[in-house]
Amino acid sequence: MDFPKVFPLPDAWLLHRVSYGETDAMGVLYYAEYLHIFERARGLFIRQRGMGYAKVEARGILLPVREAWCRYRSPSRYDDEIHVRCGIVEWNRASLRFVYEIKNPDRDRLLAQGGTEHACVNRQGRPVGVPDWLKELFGRQA
Amino acid sequence: MDFPKVFPLPDAWLLHRVSYGETDAMGVLYYAEYLHIFERARGLFIRQRGMGYAKVEARGILLPVREAWCRYRSPSRYDDEIHVRCGIVEWNRASLRFVYEIKNPDRDRLLAQGGTEHACVNRQGRPVGVPDWLKELFGRQA
Amino acid sequence: MDFPKVFPLPDAWLLHRVSYGETDAMGVLYYAEYLHIFERARGLFIRQRGMGYAKVEARGILLPVREAWCRYRSPSRYDDEIHVRCGIVEWNRASLRFVYEIKNPDRDRLLAQGGTEHACVNRQGRPVGVPDWLKELFGRQA
Amino acid sequence: MDFPKVFPLPDAWLLHRVSYGETDAMGVLYYAEYLHIFERARGLFIRQRGMGYAKVEARGILLPVREAWCRYRSPSRYDDEIHVRCGIVEWNRASLRFVYEIKNPDRDRLLAQGGTEHACVNRQGRPVGVPDWLKELFGRQA
Repeated sequence: MDFPKVFPLPDAWLLHRVSYGETDAMGVLYYAEYLHIFERARGLFIRQRGMGYAKVEARGILLPVREAWCRYRSPSRYDDEIHVRCGIVEWNRASLRFVYEIKNPDRDRLLAQGGTEHACVNRQGRPVGVPDWLKELFGRQA
Repeated sequence: MDFPKVFPLPDAWLLHRVSYGETDAMGVLYYAEYLHIFERARGLFIRQRGMGYAKVEARGILLPVREAWCRYRSPSRYDDEIHVRCGIVEWNRASLRFVYEIKNPDRDRLLAQGGTEHACVNRQGRPVGVPDWLKELFGRQA
Repeated sequence: MDFPKVFPLPDAWLLHRVSYGETDAMGVLYYAEYLHIFERARGLFIRQRGMGYAKVEARGILLPVREAWCRYRSPSRYDDEIHVRCGIVEWNRASLRFVYEIKNPDRDRLLAQGGTEHACVNRQGRPVGVPDWLKELFGRQA
Repeated sequence: MDFPKVFPLPDAWLLHRVSYGETDAMGVLYYAEYLHIFERARGLFIRQRGMGYAKVEARGILLPVREAWCRYRSPSRYDDEIHVRCGIVEWNRASLRFVYEIKNPDRDRLLAQGGTEHACVNRQGRPVGVPDWLKELFGRQA
């Protein structure tokens, strides 16, 4: 997956504190936990647009992950506060792509970056075109 | 929760290899992971009786956890093989209790023990009496 | 484990948003995740006393969990905001006990409660008496 | 990341049973859990070569993940048995890349595929050239 040169707007910033349970025997944030944290940032992004993802699902649209990717640049440790940025980088007919950056509290050092591609499906799991209301919603400024 | 003096039969033994993702910065199996592993042993116990828990749910009976408990005696580390025993210690009208032991590969050292109490509910989440077929099923020898 | 009638002070309240990754196929917060959330609340409690747990460890004192317990009263779902309270209920010579409550945002409904007992050990894992500075620290008002 | 046309040999196959704790509210294996399962398959691959990863670390070589990637093709559900294949696709001076496939029990349907790139570092976290013994070890037939 490729990462955009300029981070897309609108964006959302999640503050996350690394817990003990997220670390591993190397003493650092375990690599799978980044995808959990990306999901938290994605949830915040959607909520800040004006409607939580739970409501998106209640309207009959699900966004299962079709692809995920993460580049680990600098490890995080227990009790570190990390800042996670999320935005949408690409819309397709029946899918969309989020990108993520994790930074230190001063937001001047990149710790990790990643992306997730989501299909747009109905409750039966069938691909559907991204509805206009969803596109409009996710494009809103906070 | 109290632990029985003699481990109840029938029982099931799960072999589990500690993964890196299950360890924490202390270098040991993280305390919440024991509940995941208990769940795996419980699933094996049920499957060995002759019907997986997925089928129990398909028949309309769910067994949500109402209480869980674990005593950590000796830590496990990455790549350790641990042996997890599971059995049912108590039946009530609308609930049942499982107990668990975790041992080393020689099964002569107790690493942890625990218990979980489960309500018996229908798909709407309402408590129902334990059905006879479930009681008969879970009491079967392997 | 028994739960105190009056919640001990000082206490700390953690706000936690249930993520998708914390839910299970029943659609609710998975039972092992409560122990992760208790750990987050415990970490906040310690930080609010004036020194993070990372620094406690850096001073040579580790507090591994010896026993954990949780009673699940009412399930939480994706995107729910839950309020987690943490305090210390008991001091022993070489151990201490935390208790936890999880409530709804109005804090008028109890969703879960639990407890963890921690040994006090040095870097070699040997039990040591709770140091005076730790007892003083953890007893401080925020 | 690109995926090879022919799966590299030697390889290892891990059998994995999807637990309840690995599923999410969509009723499927949560996307971050794939990285845990890849790690289990990688650990098996290394163990089958003749020396567990714990021993590799004890010899002073750590292999932290620098990049991870997964493509989700078909969801897995509670109690599904999945077969996870792991092999090494690329060696660089100070890094190596693993690839993974997840298949159904008949191994005729691809459920997911992925890859991880690992730096080769010493205990101080400094990049070091891949030692000959490691390269020889990981290339061994089972």
